Amino acid sequence: MVGRRGATRPAQVVRHRDGASSRARDDLAVEEPLEIRVSRVGPDGRRRSDAVAVTMRTPGDDFELVAGFLYGEGLVTTREALHELTYCRSGQDAQHYNVVEARLRDGVAFDADRLRRNFYTSSSCGVCGKASLEAVEVQGCRVLDDAFTVSGALLGTLPDLLREEQGGFQRTGGLHAAGIFDAEGGCGICREDVGRHNAVDKALGHLFLNGGLPAAERILVVSGRASFEIVQKAAMAGVPVVVAVGAPSSLSVDLATRFHVTLVGFARGRRFNVYTAAERLT
Amino acid sequence: MVGRRGATRPAQVVRHRDGASSRARDDLAVEEPLEIRVSRVGPDGRRRSDAVAVTMRTPGDDFELVAGFLYGEGLVTTREALHELTYCRSGQDAQHYNVVEARLRDGVAFDADRLRRNFYTSSSCGVCGKASLEAVEVQGCRVLDDAFTVSGALLGTLPDLLREEQGGFQRTGGLHAAGIFDAEGGCGICREDVGRHNAVDKALGHLFLNGGLPAAERILVVSGRASFEIVQKAAMAGVPVVVAVGAPSSLSVDLATRFHVTLVGFARGRRFNVYTAAERLT
Repeated sequence: MVGRRGATRPAQVVRHRDGASSRARDDLAVEEPLEIRVSRVGPDGRRRSDAVAVTMRTPGDDFELVAGFLYGEGLVTTREALHELTYCRSGQDAQHYNVVEARLRDGVAFDADRLRRNFYTSSSCGVCGKASLEAVEVQGCRVLDDAFTVSGALLGTLPDLLREEQGGFQRTGGLHAAGIFDAEGGCGICREDVGRHNAVDKALGHLFLNGGLPAAERILVVSGRASFEIVQKAAMAGVPVVVAVGAPSSLSVDLATRFHVTLVGFARGRRFNVYTAAERLT
Repeated sequence: MVGRRGATRPAQVVRHRDGASSRARDDLAVEEPLEIRVSRVGPDGRRRSDAVAVTMRTPGDDFELVAGFLYGEGLVTTREALHELTYCRSGQDAQHYNVVEARLRDGVAFDADRLRRNFYTSSSCGVCGKASLEAVEVQGCRVLDDAFTVSGALLGTLPDLLREEQGGFQRTGGLHAAGIFDAEGGCGICREDVGRHNAVDKALGHLFLNGGLPAAERILVVSGRASFEIVQKAAMAGVPVVVAVGAPSSLSVDLATRFHVTLVGFARGRRFNVYTAAERLT
């Protein structure tokens, strides 16, 4: 993930320092739209392709991003269901790598409208935090009942270990990171992106594509805050511990409580807060 | 915006400090879904209501958020077009304040499917950074050709001024802020939210509802990074200068270049970088 092609781009800036200004070179984190499409053979025997989302992401690891997104939303639940991931090359040059199609295996059921219903719920079915938690359960999320434990001493070191893995952040200051660690502090995978949720999708998507989900006995470390969306992805992937460098939101704490995810926030050095399921810490 | 009802919530945490742990009280930034609906009388004389988006936001200033969102997406272009903003109280108690309907004045045209098309573009029309910039122009964004200038000395002080306005961040560490300043450093408005884009919608929505758009001679200061989305909202609102405490993305720089917005990043104390339209700085 360090120095990956297309993740950063040089720029000329005017640098102001204590009243003096000078021209300088800077590196920008690249942000580009990615359209996620899903295609499958319908009951009528014809192949059908639907756009399910457009996300602003940093190019690189796009197949992992798409796999992680589809898994996190409950749209693709097994590795076997996913036949192939390809770039759609029908457009012009600049668009070659901005549309990814996930081809489902024949016979796999897929409800293209479900994701849309999640985004555009009708007011009759209710919109509130409780309904959001229930929606995650409907997506197939289960309460974690593992006996996984991790030492508090190790846990405090993970954000620094994540930062060491982050090449793009050092150059741009504008990339979030998500890392998957084991209980000994080994980092299996680290991914960067302008969007926190994309970085998490890439890391979890990597596990999904390599048969590593559910991610029992793994720790997800994110460089920013913990929102509902971040904990949702972790819970869907069966990750028992989520560590955020920043603050958790109220709904992320509610979601972690409901699915028994250990949620740690403000993790900096040997200082951190445990918001839920503190019994996994030894 | 300080101490606003419902913006923060107390929580019990286990606090780890240098190997010792203790129970403590913490404050969480509240995150709740908000459904945005638009209703208007169609050509057939019947009122029709469509959900156009669901956003995870911090409760408070919801009408401003909705107004800012609709304006930023080019869905509502004048104050006169917006007849009324109301909470939909058809649901249960918890849902009372999570659905806001914007009622358009009779005869105002509204294309409910356009927003959906923006989210779910077809691959035939292309998905890439250039197409994203063009989409903003189609939404009605114009190149800024003002003669507005601001002193570099003042600009460096704005992030600290914004922080002073931020009550919720002090308590939770989990709220982003967006502030609107004038060229003398006066802060007309500051709004907080778990989502940067929501904080910007609330601040710009406040201006919209009070006849303050386009926001010529105003400076938008955001507590985090500058993404495409943030600069899009600023450009749509005619804000000539955007100051971000964090890094700008490549596409935010491209967008600022195209619409001649002055984009400042890494603004901390008397140090900052100017990425575009540096001639507005004196």
